[in-house]
Amino acid sequence: MGRLVQLLLLAFLMPGLAILLPPRLKALSNLHLSTSFTSRSSIVMKYSIHYMEQKIDHFGFNNEKTFKQRYLIADQHWRKEGGSVLFYTGNEGDIIWFCNNTGFMWDVAEELKAMLVFAEHRYYGQSLPFGADTFQDPKHLNFLTSEQALADFAELIKHLKRTIPGAENQPFIAVGGSYGGMLAAWFRMKYPHMVAGALAASAPIWQFEDLVPCGVFMKIVTMDFKRTCPNCSENIRSSWGAINRLTRKSTGLDWLSKALHLCTPLKNAQDVQHLKDWISETWVNLAMVDYPYESSFLQHLPAWPIKVVCQYLKNSNLSDKELLQNIFHALNVYHNYSGQATCLNMSETSTSSLGSLGWSYQACTEMVMPFCTNGVDDMFEPFLWDLKTFSDDCFKQWGVKPRPSWITSMYGGKDISSHTNIIFSNGDLDPWSGGGVTRNITDTLVAIIIPEGAHHLDLRANNAFDPMTVLLARSLEVKYMKQWIRDFYASLRKKD
Amino acid sequence: MGRLVQLLLLAFLMPGLAILLPPRLKALSNLHLSTSFTSRSSIVMKYSIHYMEQKIDHFGFNNEKTFKQRYLIADQHWRKEGGSVLFYTGNEGDIIWFCNNTGFMWDVAEELKAMLVFAEHRYYGQSLPFGADTFQDPKHLNFLTSEQALADFAELIKHLKRTIPGAENQPFIAVGGSYGGMLAAWFRMKYPHMVAGALAASAPIWQFEDLVPCGVFMKIVTMDFKRTCPNCSENIRSSWGAINRLTRKSTGLDWLSKALHLCTPLKNAQDVQHLKDWISETWVNLAMVDYPYESSFLQHLPAWPIKVVCQYLKNSNLSDKELLQNIFHALNVYHNYSGQATCLNMSETSTSSLGSLGWSYQACTEMVMPFCTNGVDDMFEPFLWDLKTFSDDCFKQWGVKPRPSWITSMYGGKDISSHTNIIFSNGDLDPWSGGGVTRNITDTLVAIIIPEGAHHLDLRANNAFDPMTVLLARSLEVKYMKQWIRDFYASLRKKD
Repeated sequence: MGRLVQLLLLAFLMPGLAILLPPRLKALSNLHLSTSFTSRSSIVMKYSIHYMEQKIDHFGFNNEKTFKQRYLIADQHWRKEGGSVLFYTGNEGDIIWFCNNTGFMWDVAEELKAMLVFAEHRYYGQSLPFGADTFQDPKHLNFLTSEQALADFAELIKHLKRTIPGAENQPFIAVGGSYGGMLAAWFRMKYPHMVAGALAASAPIWQFEDLVPCGVFMKIVTMDFKRTCPNCSENIRSSWGAINRLTRKSTGLDWLSKALHLCTPLKNAQDVQHLKDWISETWVNLAMVDYPYESSFLQHLPAWPIKVVCQYLKNSNLSDKELLQNIFHALNVYHNYSGQATCLNMSETSTSSLGSLGWSYQACTEMVMPFCTNGVDDMFEPFLWDLKTFSDDCFKQWGVKPRPSWITSMYGGKDISSHTNIIFSNGDLDPWSGGGVTRNITDTLVAIIIPEGAHHLDLRANNAFDPMTVLLARSLEVKYMKQWIRDFYASLRKKD
Repeated sequence: MGRLVQLLLLAFLMPGLAILLPPRLKALSNLHLSTSFTSRSSIVMKYSIHYMEQKIDHFGFNNEKTFKQRYLIADQHWRKEGGSVLFYTGNEGDIIWFCNNTGFMWDVAEELKAMLVFAEHRYYGQSLPFGADTFQDPKHLNFLTSEQALADFAELIKHLKRTIPGAENQPFIAVGGSYGGMLAAWFRMKYPHMVAGALAASAPIWQFEDLVPCGVFMKIVTMDFKRTCPNCSENIRSSWGAINRLTRKSTGLDWLSKALHLCTPLKNAQDVQHLKDWISETWVNLAMVDYPYESSFLQHLPAWPIKVVCQYLKNSNLSDKELLQNIFHALNVYHNYSGQATCLNMSETSTSSLGSLGWSYQACTEMVMPFCTNGVDDMFEPFLWDLKTFSDDCFKQWGVKPRPSWITSMYGGKDISSHTNIIFSNGDLDPWSGGGVTRNITDTLVAIIIPEGAHHLDLRANNAFDPMTVLLARSLEVKYMKQWIRDFYASLRKKD
């Protein structure tokens, strides 16, 4: 699969491609971000929209400029007596999208007497520090860091405590998923005076440097297919060679374009590479969104989509052409579940709610996550992690150089045991669990595993098809949060 | 005393005065900084000097420039087996000066098998990010913040662990006094993965916003004089009125200039204000350096200098002139202990080892410490804390505006109970103890009080005249540090 894992983070590294980039690469760059959720009707999501003036630079005094950070408040279930505030640490996208799609918070609001706050991450959604110039150059992008985002959250909480009567003496709890989960955990680590605890769902805080093997992500993707049916992952592994063999001849290019019903026929080796990246991306996406019920991500998907996909990849000992015909049917599940499409379009887009530009910059600066494959422990073509190439590409695209070890310096890497009150939840099916905290570190730094969970399934709204494991996870999460709330009020009473 | 407390932090706020400023104002701005120490001969202070390339901006990626941070290493007593590293979090001055004058670390090195590291604070000593341009304008000063300094320390520790064989798996402990003590505490709070604990001596981490009453500092200064002899503080309080009454007439100006043996006669009301500031500064200095043995600060001083001073201020019911003649004798203790001076010079300087320029900028940005007096609870002329004036002056001098609440947002204010392993030591005589942590917060966030201690007496070298209370404090500090070291090695063994 060659450049896929690189593309995962590099999507926009080709100079000038920010706008011209084929949309499918946008999808790649969004992969590790959040997945969208099925809409739900049982709870009405009613919120008010607010803006707060934030310093563009919290860490220097030369730039006194400000920007408007957007945040949402839902206080239907909030109680001034004994209540709490669930504070969503927004990640790389439009905050309304996250608000509408983090059903868990809405589901538990009443039980926790909680106000819900959703804070938009700077440089995403409407919270653009320099308006149309925001992504213009490294100078304007200079203030897009996790540290600045955490400082925004701190100042916002301070502002809420000052301006909302009753909020001052209530416990705030950080909640986030994926990168937002990392932010929730880091926020509790760095600003424990601001939040009583943090729920960090599917937060790969160890997907940096050599804290985990660079191959773990794709290994889990592979496992997701293998556990459904061993031949499924084997067939996918074999498919790359089949593609390579067939496409050496121009007749093969034609045949494959037709066999896969591609909207745009393959013309050369570069197209073939793009095809392989696009197929790899499909498998990765499926691993992330392998939810137990119908849902929507890039496309509408059936329940347990990998099972459906693997039905087409059960047989072994196939010829190259037979295999690739089956691959077409498998891809069709993901890219044409509705059956409406007359061809498969390699340039289909992901949701525009996620901010690809911003994330591409972050991946090129702080969020340097090494990925690799070897084709043995995983079902992809071998790919070595190469920091030098990565760095050079980043410099070409953004004029910045990544600092791969900075996140570890800043947030402690594996050495986080002195912190308290963080829940790390991970689904076994989620490839990002490879970089997550999946064992208890202390009594108050706890890991919750959801054996049948894909990417932050626990943050999604309750669903009749939820497996028992995610129901247990959510109830454990609520139990911990209630404990933090009790502890907070107990220590408040002590002070009086 | 009017502007004194303002001058404490504002010393350089008059535009263009950076160089031309009368040296006595430099002394004022250095007041709350560290005091110098008597030299000691029992332990030879032998260290090597090193430099590390540090990013000028840890929190952004647009500026890839670096500077050389100086640091010192003394490893005579270091043991690779079971040893430790005491890491001095340098404050606002030349690191060699701090190294030579933090005898405590040298005294305990052998017992803790400790390597001593002294890290210079950026923008001080030789660690100037932009050489001669460092203090030129807000643009060059933009990277002078406590956050950047802490990040320097983190990167330096990482560097030491990587490059010194044996250091990687050893516990580092942060040690600092005054602002350096604040940095030590904050470093443990923000980077607990880097240091097993912190000794924060005389660290006024609560001298911000309204965390403590703005009058507490001068109240303690007053108490130091009052406890020696009640008339002493009363006489000082009366002296301002006496000066005001006398200097309304030009004959009074002449008389007072002669009575105080001033090198430069008083000419106008402005000179009188300067005189009062200079006298106030003297009392403040004495409170900070009221050590039990002869020592040197701005001048050579006797043991328990306030006792000596107050011998001249015992009598009550004096006329204005009699009182001011006594004030002269009292001032003479501080400014002319040697008896060599033929007149008192209001423009005498403090040590050049402290970086007044840098601190003045820091006081105008993050380190906004409100001070006030009312003339009732203290012996000074009333002075209101006025943020607006302060801010305007800062803008005039540095082109920046202070953010008085930022330090509290960043470091938690009084809400620090979730942190661990910090010793806050304070001397009861030290005016800075008013903004310090003087009660245990938890089992591992402990306060040590030194009833007979002035400004971080515990960090000074052992001395035959040390009171029992400081010996006890030091031994308690060592006890805690040994516990951290034991805990560190125990958790290391668990990991194996």
